[in-house]
Amino acid sequence: MKFEVTVTLKKDVLDPQGKVVSQTLKNIGIKNLTQVRQGKYFEIDVDEKDSSKAIDQVKEMCEKLLVNQIIEDFKIKKAG
Amino acid sequence: MKFEVTVTLKKDVLDPQGKVVSQTLKNIGIKNLTQVRQGKYFEIDVDEKDSSKAIDQVKEMCEKLLVNQIIEDFKIKKAG
Repeated sequence: MKFEVTVTLKKDVLDPQGKVVSQTLKNIGIKNLTQVRQGKYFEIDVDEKDSSKAIDQVKEMCEKLLVNQIIEDFKIKKAG
Repeated sequence: MKFEVTVTLKKDVLDPQGKVVSQTLKNIGIKNLTQVRQGKYFEIDVDEKDSSKAIDQVKEMCEKLLVNQIIEDFKIKKAG
């Protein structure tokens, strides 16, 4: 079972990386750009047929390693 | 108008970063894990009300800066 996990900085956390991307896009001539925020993305394959068990496992991975819950939020979505 | 952009490595491109994440998850006791692939994620706000124009602008950002189309694919999704 395959999942897509997106990890984003919480709303009030500064995102210098996104700022640089945004500034660079403006420098190369992109107009109308308001904001860019950068996050992380993982595609995770789990060998588990029970959908709710599989989601629990992906959640565990997020909480234990992939996400710093002090400054980041995460979303898990079933792929495909 | 807000968009979510995910950038992933093409299927046949090796992903050492994902491999390390996968191995680390196994080392801390996660079971049933088949594969992790890591990508990039951007939230992009565009000051443009016409939806198809806005998508074109985001596509231009991807092609000009955010995505290396030799080894990466990208998906644009309207947020919210």
